[in-house]
Parts: sequence; C-alpha cells; structure tokens
Amino acid sequence: MKDVASEVDNRGITIDRVGVRDIHLPVMIREKEGGMARVVGCFDASVELPYHYRGTHMSRFVEVLSAWSKRAVSMVEIGAMLRQMQETFDAGASRLELTFKYFLTKYAPATGIECQLDYDCSFEGEMRGDEYQFTLSVVVPILTLCPCSKEISDRGAHSQRANLRVRLRAEPGVIIWLEDLVPLLEAQGSYELFPMLKRADEKVVTEGAYDNPKFVEDVVRDTVLALGKVDGVTWFSVECQSLESIHNHIAYAYAESN
Amino acid sequence: MKDVASEVDNRGITIDRVGVRDIHLPVMIREKEGGMARVVGCFDASVELPYHYRGTHMSRFVEVLSAWSKRAVSMVEIGAMLRQMQETFDAGASRLELTFKYFLTKYAPATGIECQLDYDCSFEGEMRGDEYQFTLSVVVPILTLCPCSKEISDRGAHSQRANLRVRLRAEPGVIIWLEDLVPLLEAQGSYELFPMLKRADEKVVTEGAYDNPKFVEDVVRDTVLALGKVDGVTWFSVECQSLESIHNHIAYAYAESN
Amino acid sequence: MKDVASEVDNRGITIDRVGVRDIHLPVMIREKEGGMARVVGCFDASVELPYHYRGTHMSRFVEVLSAWSKRAVSMVEIGAMLRQMQETFDAGASRLELTFKYFLTKYAPATGIECQLDYDCSFEGEMRGDEYQFTLSVVVPILTLCPCSKEISDRGAHSQRANLRVRLRAEPGVIIWLEDLVPLLEAQGSYELFPMLKRADEKVVTEGAYDNPKFVEDVVRDTVLALGKVDGVTWFSVECQSLESIHNHIAYAYAESN
Amino acid sequence: MKDVASEVDNRGITIDRVGVRDIHLPVMIREKEGGMARVVGCFDASVELPYHYRGTHMSRFVEVLSAWSKRAVSMVEIGAMLRQMQETFDAGASRLELTFKYFLTKYAPATGIECQLDYDCSFEGEMRGDEYQFTLSVVVPILTLCPCSKEISDRGAHSQRANLRVRLRAEPGVIIWLEDLVPLLEAQGSYELFPMLKRADEKVVTEGAYDNPKFVEDVVRDTVLALGKVDGVTWFSVECQSLESIHNHIAYAYAESN
Repeated sequence: MKDVASEVDNRGITIDRVGVRDIHLPVMIREKEGGMARVVGCFDASVELPYHYRGTHMSRFVEVLSAWSKRAVSMVEIGAMLRQMQETFDAGASRLELTFKYFLTKYAPATGIECQLDYDCSFEGEMRGDEYQFTLSVVVPILTLCPCSKEISDRGAHSQRANLRVRLRAEPGVIIWLEDLVPLLEAQGSYELFPMLKRADEKVVTEGAYDNPKFVEDVVRDTVLALGKVDGVTWFSVECQSLESIHNHIAYAYAESN
Repeated sequence: MKDVASEVDNRGITIDRVGVRDIHLPVMIREKEGGMARVVGCFDASVELPYHYRGTHMSRFVEVLSAWSKRAVSMVEIGAMLRQMQETFDAGASRLELTFKYFLTKYAPATGIECQLDYDCSFEGEMRGDEYQFTLSVVVPILTLCPCSKEISDRGAHSQRANLRVRLRAEPGVIIWLEDLVPLLEAQGSYELFPMLKRADEKVVTEGAYDNPKFVEDVVRDTVLALGKVDGVTWFSVECQSLESIHNHIAYAYAESN
Repeated sequence: MKDVASEVDNRGITIDRVGVRDIHLPVMIREKEGGMARVVGCFDASVELPYHYRGTHMSRFVEVLSAWSKRAVSMVEIGAMLRQMQETFDAGASRLELTFKYFLTKYAPATGIECQLDYDCSFEGEMRGDEYQFTLSVVVPILTLCPCSKEISDRGAHSQRANLRVRLRAEPGVIIWLEDLVPLLEAQGSYELFPMLKRADEKVVTEGAYDNPKFVEDVVRDTVLALGKVDGVTWFSVECQSLESIHNHIAYAYAESN
Repeated sequence: MKDVASEVDNRGITIDRVGVRDIHLPVMIREKEGGMARVVGCFDASVELPYHYRGTHMSRFVEVLSAWSKRAVSMVEIGAMLRQMQETFDAGASRLELTFKYFLTKYAPATGIECQLDYDCSFEGEMRGDEYQFTLSVVVPILTLCPCSKEISDRGAHSQRANLRVRLRAEPGVIIWLEDLVPLLEAQGSYELFPMLKRADEKVVTEGAYDNPKFVEDVVRDTVLALGKVDGVTWFSVECQSLESIHNHIAYAYAESN
C-alpha cells in the first residue's frame, strides 16, 4: 500500500508544528503526597516536520499518547513523551500540551466544612534537540472587591468573581506542585472562593473581602511579589481577569517576570 | 442530473425538523422609532419533512434567508419568511430562529454620559399550517447584591454580575419592543450595568445596589410581577443566572407564567 | 445569625426551579460489566421553591452532590439524589443533570488496534412527588457521505464529521447501557469514527463510507428505526448535525418518537 | 472625591498590560472599493502601567473606543486609536485588538449564484513609543480531501471542513485588503466553500476537491509559497486545522515566515 505521507517534498519548507488537537484520554496526575489523581486530559501534540518530508503519520501521536494514559504524569513524564515523539517521527523538535481539571480540598473559613474545588490546569512541554522546557499553568478563581468603589461610597463596595492565571517555569529538577501553587495564588485576591459556605463562613468571606480591596492591578503586583519568593522559579506570567459586576465587560492586568 | 433528495422514501417516518444552522448574514432590525439597526444575524431554519420525501434541498433555505438580509426584520417579517419556507418546501410546518446583538444607548446615572450596550437577543418563529407563534428572547446583564451576605456581615456585602433571560409571546398584532423591554428588565436587579461609569456614577451604583439587595429568587419574582403588567403579553419565562463572586459556580432561578 | 433565605415571601409566586449550575466534581459511573469509570462530572441541580419561602440555602445542593461524588452513579442513584434533595429542601419537585465524558474502547476495522474514544453523555433526572423520570443522553460522532454528491459526480463524494445526539427514556427498572447504545448509534452513519487508524483501516473506512452514502435525514430515520427495536425504550429524540465540508454551516435533522 | 487609582504605588512593578476586554461596539470597516462595512466589533484594549501608578481609569478605554465606533476603521485608524490611548493614559506602550465578522460575496462555481459568506477577522495593533506594528488576521474555511485516503482506496476519499488561519504584517503604508487576501487563501485548500450550491455547483466542488487532494501540511506549504509572493508582506504565520471526518479530533499544521 503506497505511503503518500512519506513522499519526498520539493517545496523546501520546514513546518514548525504538525500534529493533533482535542484528543481526550483518561490520565493520572502525580499528587504531591505521592498518590495519583485520575482526571480527563485533553492533548495537543506536535512535531517539527523537516522540509524534505511531505507529511506525518498522525496516528502515531495517538499511539504515543494512549500508551501514557495508564501511567501517572508529571513534568518528568511529559519530557519522556516528547523524547518518544521525536524518535517516532525522527523530528528535531516537539511540543505537547495537556489540559485537565484538578481537584483540591477546600475548608470553609469558619465551619471548616470540606469540599472539592476544581482548577483548570495545563502541563506544556517543548523540546528542541535535548533541550526541554516545561511550563505549568493554572487558573484560580478569586474574589476582587473594588478599592475605588469602597473609598467613594458611603456603604458597600462592588465585588465580583475574577480569574488569576499563572504560567511558570522552574529550574531543572524542581517540581512546583499545584497543591502549593494554588493556595499561594488564592491568597492574592480580596478573598478566596469556596464551593460550599454556611452563613458563618459567608460572613467571614464578606468582611474579609471588604477589608482587603484590590484592583486587578493590585492582584497582579502582589502575585508577582509572591512568585518572586518561590524557590526555583525561573520565569512566570500573571494575568488577572475580573468579570466586573458594574459593567458587562472584563477588566484585566498582565505582567511577566523580567 | 439525478435528484437524490427528491426520491420517494419508504421508511414511513416524518422528520420534525430538517434544516440549517450557523448561517451568518447581515440583517436589519426594525427599531421602535422607525429606523433600522444593522446587525449580524445568525440563523437556524428548518421545515417538517413529510414521510414520503427522502431529503430536502438545503440550498433553498440559504436562498430564502439571503433574500431577506437586505430588508428590515421584525415579528411580521419572520412570519413572512416562515410562510415562504413552507411554500418553497411544500411543508406543513416551519421554524426559524434569528439571534443577534442589539445595541441600546445607556446614560450613566450621575454624569449622564452616554454609551452603547449590547444585548443578546433572538426572534423565534414557529408556523404550523397558518398558525404562527412568535417568541422574543433577550438576555440582560444586571448586578445582584446578596441579601444574606448584607444581613449577616458587619460591613460590605458580596455582589456579582448576573444575567436575566426572558422569553415572551404576545397577542397577535402586539409588538413588544426591545427598547421598552430591556429597561424594564434592567430595573429588576440590585442595579443595572453600564459600559462607562465615572467615579460619581460608580458611587450611585454601589450605594444603590447596597440599598437594594436581591437573591436570584427575588429577581425572578419581581420580573414575573413586572411582566404580568405589560399589556398584550400572553406567555413568558424568566431565568436569572448569577455568577456568584464567593463561589466558582452559578446560582439560578427559573419561572414560567401560568 | 438571621436567616434571610427562610423569610416568608408575600409575592405569591412559586418558582419552578431554584438551584446551582457548573459544579464540577469527580464521579464514578457504573459500567455494564460491573466496574466503575472515574470521570469528571458537571452538575445542574434544582428544586421547586414554594411561593411562601423567600429563598433557598444553596449550599445544601453542594452538600448533597459532594456526598455522592465518592459513590458509583447510575439511573438508580440519580433517583436517590433527587429524593434526598426534595427532603432537604422540603420541595415538591426536583431536577438534576449530570454531564460527563465517557470512554469506550474502539477497535480499528482492519488492524484491530484498540484505542479509547470519549462520548459526551448526560444523566437527567426529574422528580415530582414520587414520580421519577430519567433521561439518558449521548452525542456520538459519525461520518456522513453525501448521496447527492456521489450520484452527480464522476468521481469522489464529499464527506464530513457529524454528530448524532440521542435522548431516551425507558420503562421503570430497565437500564439502557452506554456500552450498548453507543455502538448501535455509531452504526447509523455512513461509517463510524476511530481515534487511531492505520492505512489498512483508513481504506476500509473510506470505501465503507463511499458504499453507504447518507443524508442527515437518512441517519435520523435509520436511528428512529433502530431505537424502535430496543426493548424497554418508551420515548426518544434523535438529532443529526453535519459539519458540512462544502459549506461553512451545519445541516441537521431532528425527530422524536411518537 | 478621592481618586484611589491615581495613588502612588510602592511595589516597584511595571504592569505590561492593563485594560478591558469583551467590549462590543458597532464599527465600520473600510472596504477596498472605498465603501464601509458596518459590523459588530469586539475590542481588547490595554496600556502599559508604569510602576509608580497604582491603577488605571478603565472608563477612559471605553471613551476612546466609543468615539471611534461611528467612523470607518482600518490599519491607519487603529494606529490613531493607540496614539490617543497612550496620550490619555500617559503610557509608553499600548495594544488594541478588534475582532469582527466580515462578509464577502461568493459566486457558485457553475451557476454563478451569489451569496455572502462571513470570515472571522481581527485587526491587532501594538505601539511602543512611536513604533507601530499592525497585524491582520483572518480565518478562512476550506475543504481538504485526504491524499492518503484517495491513494489507498479503490473508490472515494474522505474530505472535511478545515480552517486556514493567517496572521500577517506589511511594510509601512501597505494595506493588505481582506478582499484580496481571502480569495488567495481560499485557493489553497482542496476546494473553497460556498454558502449556497445547486447540484451543478456541487458536482464541480466534489470533482474539483477529488482532483486536488491535500494534507494540512500541503495547505500550509502552499499558503507559505503564495504569501511569499504578495508584495509588501514582511511577516506571516499560517495554521491549517482540519476537523477530520474519520476521527473525532483535529489535525493541524503551523508555520511562520522566516
């Protein structure tokens, strides 16, 4: 059977990325305490296609990804997957993104009732030759209460849900755990969110947010300062998007580490 | 050239709806004051397919819709389009949905600065034989401030953006204008939203919302009462979805007229 | 601490549904073979609110749902959750929707290579008093090849990805398993889809689809006939949406059982 | 009234981007022939916030954008808006993105029937000091027919809808018109799409696509070659995403100019 994808190509153009997207597979994420969280992952995987090949055997991406769907995944395994992809495709560079919802246990601030909250996370890996770069990404919902609204009003202050998105990279060998990163980020809003709150808890959240008003600019700056103190972090970006309650649009701020 | 769609079908099954979706076309919406608003419309159009036809000539839907994209559209024209679809397809029933963003001018509450705000609207028409039913739908963003949070807290109260969605039908010949309906709905939240607010305006909104706390249940009941007083309305449904600022989920209430 | 939600309401309006949406929790779905699939569920839960109560204690929904997130869920357990919700809220009616991605193993048609494919599913339950209605819903991706295009063209025929969505109800006590329903639905397209295909498989799929051209109208009618033969099914709806490859819009057909 | 946003900030952190998102306004886009197309625009606007300011007066973004919503917009006006934003906020850098659906007339290949098709476009502008960079972006739907499937199968070949996304920059003063760019991109697929096709047209499209099979890799390479011949273009990126009809995932290729 003829293999059209393996034909020689004469157009002389290297393609930066050839691959597949929207592949859902069950995956297991390594937890800080040593266990494994079973989640549903969505993959985007690609390799560089040298100028002399016409095409790629796309099914091989699915083969590589499927093989890993029964094993625990963390920064280390993403690197191994990339290496396997480069070998399989005889490619000089590869890229992989795994997005998933990760659950952590939250305790209500007054009653201590526990409940699970989900966070949108992703593991992004890029490899060129042997050089491997891993980027961890997480979106943390927080509450922001407007300092201007509080200052100028005789009573009350508008608040709203906001999202704090952080992407970061660390020194080789250093693992930044979601179990550590998420609480650090939740502490940067006017208050953190909870899936379940009794009235005694709601009072704590309401008053706590009122006592801690923050613009999206404040959230971003405080997050930059907090991440600057985390050992081993070499680069990060921070974005806070606020679903303004007095407008129908989003207010946001974005900063990168230097 | 053989016409496969026109073949006789022997499976004996009438199909309730056969049609097209996600067709974007420029449309003009009749304004209350007599003008026409140029918007981008998205159409979903279908007819009933009798059991004896195998298929439908889908291109005819696009023909009918395209012809109307240069004329002003309101409840009346949706009816004419349905009639034309039933004739074109020799169908006993038809259905049409046109969704679009509609802009209205808002004036900030203290400074009076004007700005346009967009609302997600739809015109839905259904015809069976000669019987025509038209449903108007609009989603209005509002602010809700939690009565419980205000009551139990020594200071502040959490607020958030919410969406109030109303669908309604009226007596034959009665047109409910978006220009009238939207302000009536905006009055049902703790406060209305604005695209542009100066500090003097923000003070009015903050204090106004604090003085008018509402659960989603309150918003829905007040809207039911308000719509009950609109002349000519024969049926409606109301849903308020609140993007809770202390949770990462939605709280909602839904009611229909009796 | 005052309980505003429990106040008496004087507006005289019963609210059909009050509840929460977009709650993500890990859940376990009962498999046909007796095991349990760990998935990420998204819940929408609500109760009817009698006219004399002002509000609902929304946190109790999260309590009920969280308690169930560690146990296996099927039609039976959804009923138990609804009963618990009605007791917790002293409500006469309740509603619950659980959506999740469910994985099944597929075998490539020539090589037999196995791989997992995900399907968007939902369990919907409604209870009024003691009367319980359960609806199973699944979206199955299929391939459709156009009969008209094949007939009129000297070579080739356009094909595209389509989605076949079925919702169905069964007699009390009858469980329709996704493991049985999905393959039955996949058989209704021009051909079924696979996550991984080698060239020998791709040849089978290409030729098989070419030999079995179907309009969306054909897919819907054949599905209606197939579901009519499943024991215990009392009601169903079928919709096929085709992402037309020669247009930028969707063609669709929809039918309900009588 | 105290102005909290204007307070001095001591954290020493410059914020790369502070702004607003999801602002919808009617806009007019300059057409090649000299007219103006009225569309609905969605804006993302931001400025750099120097380390010594605490916050930004977000309402001023809406003021600037609103003022422009009644005038025709092209590359030139985006630059003027950025300059105005930098002055208004006393900022050293600014960024603006305007996304909109743009309609062009298509003629069916055999019957010549005309109909409008919409394309998702965006104008992105960035300014740092006086240095202005404008990027035009458009997504063009096309049809791809698989060369491998055609080669190995005795009859037929699977085809599907794909999206070709191009972003490009040009020399100062050179305007690349969507009226020219879109047809050039549509010519890179196995065939172009149309909103309305009669049977004679469908035959042309089906046979034309069958005679011109292309992988996403081929589409990207051919687009790179075609854009390389457009006068004045200084940089571009090309991505082709194919909604595979035999899989439930996307296959894609991406390349940038050197």
